[in-house]
Amino acid sequence: MQFHHHGYVSTDPRMQPAAGVGLDRPADLPDEVDVLIVGTGPAGMITAAQLAQFPDVNVRIIERRPERLAIGQADGIQARSVETFQAFGFAERITAEAYHLTEMAFWAPDPEDPSRIIKTASPPDDPTGVSEFPHLIVNQARVLDYFAEAAYNAPGRLTPDYGYEFKALEVTQEGDFPVRVTLAHTSGSQKDVERVIHAKYVVGADGARSGVRAAIGCTLAGQSANHAWGVMDVLANTDFPDIRTKSAIQSSTGGNILLIPREGGYLFRMYVDLGEVPEDDAGNVRKTSIDQIIAKANAIIAPYTLDVKNVAWSSVYEVGHRLTDRFDDVPADERGTRSPRVFIAGDACHTHSAKAGQGMNVSMQDGWNIGWKLGHVLDGRAPEALLDTYSLERQVVAQNLIDFDKEWSTLMAKPAAELGSPQEVADFYTRTAEFPAGFMTEYEPSMIVGTADHQELATGFPLGKRFKSARVVKVCDTNPAHLGHFHAADGRYRIYVFADRAAPAEASAVRELAEWLAGPESPIAVHTPAGRDSSSLFDVRVIYQQGHHDVNLNDVPDAFKPTVGPFELVNLENVYAKHPDIDIFEERGISRDGAIVVVRPDHYVSQVLPLTARDELAAFFRGALKPAS
Amino acid sequence: MQFHHHGYVSTDPRMQPAAGVGLDRPADLPDEVDVLIVGTGPAGMITAAQLAQFPDVNVRIIERRPERLAIGQADGIQARSVETFQAFGFAERITAEAYHLTEMAFWAPDPEDPSRIIKTASPPDDPTGVSEFPHLIVNQARVLDYFAEAAYNAPGRLTPDYGYEFKALEVTQEGDFPVRVTLAHTSGSQKDVERVIHAKYVVGADGARSGVRAAIGCTLAGQSANHAWGVMDVLANTDFPDIRTKSAIQSSTGGNILLIPREGGYLFRMYVDLGEVPEDDAGNVRKTSIDQIIAKANAIIAPYTLDVKNVAWSSVYEVGHRLTDRFDDVPADERGTRSPRVFIAGDACHTHSAKAGQGMNVSMQDGWNIGWKLGHVLDGRAPEALLDTYSLERQVVAQNLIDFDKEWSTLMAKPAAELGSPQEVADFYTRTAEFPAGFMTEYEPSMIVGTADHQELATGFPLGKRFKSARVVKVCDTNPAHLGHFHAADGRYRIYVFADRAAPAEASAVRELAEWLAGPESPIAVHTPAGRDSSSLFDVRVIYQQGHHDVNLNDVPDAFKPTVGPFELVNLENVYAKHPDIDIFEERGISRDGAIVVVRPDHYVSQVLPLTARDELAAFFRGALKPAS
Ligand SMILES: Cc1cc2nc3c(=O)[nH]c(=O)nc-3n(C[C@H](O)[C@H](O)[C@H](O)COP(=O)(O)OP(=O)(O)OC[C@H]3O[C@@H](n4cnc5c(N)ncnc54)[C@H](O)[C@@H]3O)c2cc1C
Ligand SMILES: Cc1cc2nc3c(=O)[nH]c(=O)nc-3n(C[C@H](O)[C@H](O)[C@H](O)COP(=O)(O)OP(=O)(O)OC[C@H]3O[C@@H](n4cnc5c(N)ncnc54)[C@H](O)[C@@H]3O)c2cc1C
Repeated sequence: MQFHHHGYVSTDPRMQPAAGVGLDRPADLPDEVDVLIVGTGPAGMITAAQLAQFPDVNVRIIERRPERLAIGQADGIQARSVETFQAFGFAERITAEAYHLTEMAFWAPDPEDPSRIIKTASPPDDPTGVSEFPHLIVNQARVLDYFAEAAYNAPGRLTPDYGYEFKALEVTQEGDFPVRVTLAHTSGSQKDVERVIHAKYVVGADGARSGVRAAIGCTLAGQSANHAWGVMDVLANTDFPDIRTKSAIQSSTGGNILLIPREGGYLFRMYVDLGEVPEDDAGNVRKTSIDQIIAKANAIIAPYTLDVKNVAWSSVYEVGHRLTDRFDDVPADERGTRSPRVFIAGDACHTHSAKAGQGMNVSMQDGWNIGWKLGHVLDGRAPEALLDTYSLERQVVAQNLIDFDKEWSTLMAKPAAELGSPQEVADFYTRTAEFPAGFMTEYEPSMIVGTADHQELATGFPLGKRFKSARVVKVCDTNPAHLGHFHAADGRYRIYVFADRAAPAEASAVRELAEWLAGPESPIAVHTPAGRDSSSLFDVRVIYQQGHHDVNLNDVPDAFKPTVGPFELVNLENVYAKHPDIDIFEERGISRDGAIVVVRPDHYVSQVLPLTARDELAAFFRGALKPAS
Repeated sequence: MQFHHHGYVSTDPRMQPAAGVGLDRPADLPDEVDVLIVGTGPAGMITAAQLAQFPDVNVRIIERRPERLAIGQADGIQARSVETFQAFGFAERITAEAYHLTEMAFWAPDPEDPSRIIKTASPPDDPTGVSEFPHLIVNQARVLDYFAEAAYNAPGRLTPDYGYEFKALEVTQEGDFPVRVTLAHTSGSQKDVERVIHAKYVVGADGARSGVRAAIGCTLAGQSANHAWGVMDVLANTDFPDIRTKSAIQSSTGGNILLIPREGGYLFRMYVDLGEVPEDDAGNVRKTSIDQIIAKANAIIAPYTLDVKNVAWSSVYEVGHRLTDRFDDVPADERGTRSPRVFIAGDACHTHSAKAGQGMNVSMQDGWNIGWKLGHVLDGRAPEALLDTYSLERQVVAQNLIDFDKEWSTLMAKPAAELGSPQEVADFYTRTAEFPAGFMTEYEPSMIVGTADHQELATGFPLGKRFKSARVVKVCDTNPAHLGHFHAADGRYRIYVFADRAAPAEASAVRELAEWLAGPESPIAVHTPAGRDSSSLFDVRVIYQQGHHDVNLNDVPDAFKPTVGPFELVNLENVYAKHPDIDIFEERGISRDGAIVVVRPDHYVSQVLPLTARDELAAFFRGALKPAS
C-alpha cells in the first residue's frame, strides 16, 4: 500500500483521495452516464470497484433490491478470487473472517453394511500448492460488502443506486450516449415510475434471469433439464464427525449431500441433491419444504444424525448448464463492423451446478475483465476495439467451466455402486484441483495477449495465463515479498524487467533497456498523457538476480525509480532482488539473460520478450493503447 | 473468529452483539461511572478496549483534545504489540498498512575518511525468530483508531468522550463511587466549565505530565537531565541508499540520527540527536527550528544529501529516564490495608528515550494489565485484592525497561571512536532482540501466577512469561493453526490441556481430568454464574499428541466440546492435534504424560500442572477468582 506521497494521510489509507467524478458525485442517478451497470451481484460489484479506479469515467450501478444483499446465495471462494481480493485490497480482512478449506472428505456406503456411511478419502484441498492464497467459504453478502467498500474508497467514490429495476434498452447508435435504458423505481413513493437513462455502455450483471441479456437478443442455451438442490444454511448439533470439513456424502440409496462448513465456527450449508427436474415439473420441486430437506439429509448421513436448531437460510436452488454464444450485443456476423455497447457478465451469460462452487468466482472474473477494458476505452487510453476482446475471452472460459462442471457433477451424482473405486471421486478432485481453484484460464492471442514466440525466456509465466507470483526481496526496505501482490487493481499494465546477469552498476542489457524506457520512443513516453506521472499508466519493476545486499539503489537506473506526485518523490519500491531461499529466476524458469514480462491490469500475461526487444514492446503497446493526445 | 451462534450475522462479524451498558449507552458522560479512564493515548485506549469486553461494567474514557489524534508521537510497534493487536482483532489490518522492519542498518564514519559515513552492519531485526509476528512502524494515530474501533465493536460499545480535561481527584472512601473527579470542558460553549464525576476507579493514562499522577502524590523520579531529539516526519528525496531501512547513523562529529522509515512507502522519520538538555536550558532546545534539524541531518549523512520536500510533522521531543515508585494510590506502607482506587499507566508512570522505541508498546501492556483486572473485579468474578497486582507487576517491568533503554541509548550516543568495534552497536542490538520485541516480561509469583513447581512439564511455557504460541491442527476443520492466536482479549482464562499418550478413545489421565472438569468440583462449576455458558469464564482447549486423522471428535470428552448460546450448539473448535511438520510437544518441551497450562487473560502463563493436579488447579482459581454467587 503506497500513500502519504500526496501529503500526509492521517486516517485509513485504504480510502484513496477522491478525484474526477468522485469529487462531487451526485446522490441521484443522473440522466447521462458513461457506464450503467445493472445488478449488484459479484459480477456487477467487481465491475463497479474496478471502474471506480477510473475517476474520469462516470459510472453508476443500479440494483432492484432496496438495499444490500443480507443472506444466502453462493459462498465458495476459490484461490484465484482471494488473489483478486488482494488486488482490490481486502484479502487479509475477508480471509480473517472466512472458513478455510484445507481438506475435503469423501463419504460413501460401507461395503460391509451399505446402510451406513464411512469415510473413504480425505485428500488435501490444494495438494500441489497451486496458490499461496487460501480456498475460503464465506457468504456472498460479505464479498459484496467488501467490493462496495473498495468502490467507495476508490477515487471515483462509487456507491450503488438501490431500488431501480432494469426494464428495457435500445442501442440507438446516436449521439454520445447511444444506449437508451428504461428503468423503474422498485420502492418508495416513486414505485413503478419509469425513468430513461442514456449511457455510453451498459453492463448487464443481472443474474440468471437477465433482462439485459434478453434485450440484446441472447439466449441461455444448453442442457434442457435443470438440476435441483435443497440448500440450507443451518445451526445444528450432530455426531457426524466431519461436520466442519467440506464433505461429499453419498448414500447407498443414491441420495447425496455436499456439506460446506461456513464462517464463524458453527453454521454450515448442506446441498441435498433433489435430482433432475422433469420438464413438466411446473415448479413442484420448489415446493420441497425445509423439513423434507432435513429429513432427507438425516437419511443420507445414517448412522449419524442431525439435530437442526436454527435455519438461517434455505432455498431450492434449481439450475442447469447453460451458456450464451456471445457476451455482448454484436452478433457474430457483425463482429468488427461496430463496437459493442452492451455487455453481459456472470450468471447472465452462464449458469452451472452449485457442486463445483464456481458461480460467484467466474462471475467476478467476467466483471473484472470488462471493468478495466471499459475504463481504458472511456478514459481515452485504449482503442474501442479492446471491447471486442471481452466476449471473445470470457465466452470460452464459460464453455470450459460448463464442461468441467458437467463432468464433476455427473461423477458426484453417480451411485456408489457404479463408481470404479470409492477413490474415483477423490482422485478426480485432486487431479483437477487447478481448475476449480480458478487458474486454468488461458486467453488466446489478441491485441492484448502476445504469441508465445519467446515463451522459453520465462517458462513459468505462460502467455495468456494469470501471472503466478513468486517471492523476491524488496531492496529498499529488505522486506521479503510476493512480487505479484503489488499488482493492485488500478488499471495499470505491469512491465516486469528481469535483469540479466551483470551487477546493477555494470553495463548490461537491462541498463540499455532502462535508458530506452526513459527516452522518447518508449511506450511510457508515447502513451502517458502530458503532465501525468510516468507511472500512471505503466508500473515498471526490475528484478535483479543478485541478493539485496548486492543491489545499491544508487546503481539502479532511474527508469525503475519513477518520481510521483506533487513533490516529485522518488518511488524506491519497484526494485527487487533474489529471495534468500527461493530464486524466482529458477522457480519461474526465467532466462539468465533476462526477460521482459508484460502483465495486463487483470493479472494475465500479455508478453514475454527478450530485454533487447524494444520494438516488439513498443509495437505491443501501440496495439493495446492509443498514443497520448 | 466465532459468530453466527447467537443467530445469523449478516454484516461485519467484528461487530459483536451489544450487551449490558452497550445496549443503551448514554451519549453524555454520566455523573457516576464504574471506571473513568483519563487520556486516549495507547495506555488509555487499550484499557478502554479491554473493559468494553465487560459490558456490565460502566466505563468512560475522557480526553482533553476535542477529537482523535491526527499525527505525530510514537510509531514503533514491537512484535508483542502486534500479538496484542491480534488478540484485539486487528493485527492483519494494521499489518497490511504498516512498514515492516526486517533488517536494521548501522552506519558509521569511514575509518579511511571519517568525513564520510559507510555501512558497518545490517543484522536481521529478529535473528532468532523470537515471534511469528512482525515488527512494524506505523503512526500512533492509527493504533488509536484501531483500538477505538475495537472498543466500539465490543459488547460495551465504548467511545471516547472528547473535550474533557481532568483537573483534580479525591479518594473519599465513601459510598459506592468513592473517587470524586473534577473535570472541565475544553471546547464548545461549555469551555472551562467544571463538572464533578463520581467513579469507583480511575485510570490515569494522561501521559508524561499526568495530572492523575500528581493527584495521588506520585512523582516521576530519575535522571535529572532530559535528552532532546529533533524529530521530523518528512517526505524527501535523497541518495542515502538505506533511506527505507531503519538505520542508526553516527557521524565523526558526534552527531547521530535514528532513521525510521514509515508506512506508505515514502514518508520517514528522523530523530536527530540534540544531546542532553542542560538544567538551565529554560526551554531553549525546544526552539530548535525544523531548518536547523534538517541542516544537522544533512551534515551527519555526508556525503549523502537530503532534499526535504514536505514536513508532515516535526517536534523537539525532550524526555528523561523517569519512573514512579508505585502505579496506584496506595503508598507502600498502606499496601494491603486498603484497595487501590486510582491507577496510573503508560507515560504517566515511566518515560524513556525514543531510541528503543518502547513508549507506546510498554504503555499498552500497562493498560491491558489493569484493564482485565478491573473487569474481573467489577463484574464480580475476582476479589479486589487482584488490583494490587497491577502496580506490583508493572512497576518492575518499567524499571527493567529504563535500565535497558539507558544502556542502549548510551551505546548509540557514543562517538564512533570510543566504540570497541564498529560492530559493537549491531551486536548489542542482535543479542538483546527479545527485550525490545517485548517478550522479556516475567511476572513474579502472586495470586495469578503460580510457582514453578511443575515447570519441567512444559519447559517452553515459563511461568510468568507470555504464552508463546506454536502450531497445531484444529481437528474439526483440519486447519493448521497457531494455538495462541485463538486467545482473544475477551477477559477469559485459558486452560490448555495437553493430553497424555493414549489415543482419545482410550482410558487416560486426560479423560479423567475431563470428567472432573465437567463435574461439580471443577473451577468451571465453582466460578461460573448460574445460567451462563460453561465457557464464559474459562476457555478450555485440548491438544492431542496424535495427528488429526487419528482424533475422532466423537471420542473427545464433552469437557472439551462446550455448548454455547441460545441454541446450545456444540463448539468443536477447541480440539487440536499435532501439526504434520512441527510437534508442539517437542517444540515447547511438553511432557508426554501431558500437562495443564493455565494462561491469564493477558497471555501470561499462570500455572503449569500435571494432568492429575486437580486440587492445585481448583486452589489456583479459588485464589484468582471468587466463587459464583
Ligand atoms: C436465490 C439464489 C440462490 C443461489 N444459490 C446458490 C448456491 O446455493 N450456490 C451457488 O454456488 N450459487 C448460488 N447462486 C448463484 C450465485 O449466487 C451466482 O452464480 C453468482 O451470484 C453470480 O453472480 P452475478 O453477479 O452474475 O449474479 P447475481 O449474484 O445473481 O446478481 C444479479 C443481481 O442483479 C439484480 N437484478 C436482477 N435483475 C435485475 C433488474 N432487472 N434490475 C436491477 N437489478 C436486477 C439482482 O437483484 C442481483 O442482485 C444463487 C443465486 C441466487 C439468485
Ligand atoms: C508530543 C509528543 C511527542 C512524542 N513523540 C514521540 C516520539 O517521537 N517517539 C516516541 O517513541 N514516543 C514519542 N512520544 C511518546 C509516546 O507517544 C508515548 O510513550 C506513548 O504515547 C505513551 O502512551 P500513553 O497512553 O501513556 O500517553 P499519551 O500517548 O501521551 O496519551 C496521553 C493522553 O492523555 C491526554 N491528556 C493529558 N492530560 C490530560 C488531562 N488532564 N485531561 C484529559 N486528557 C489528558 C493527552 O491529550 C493524550 O491524548 C511522544 C509523546 C508526545 C506527547
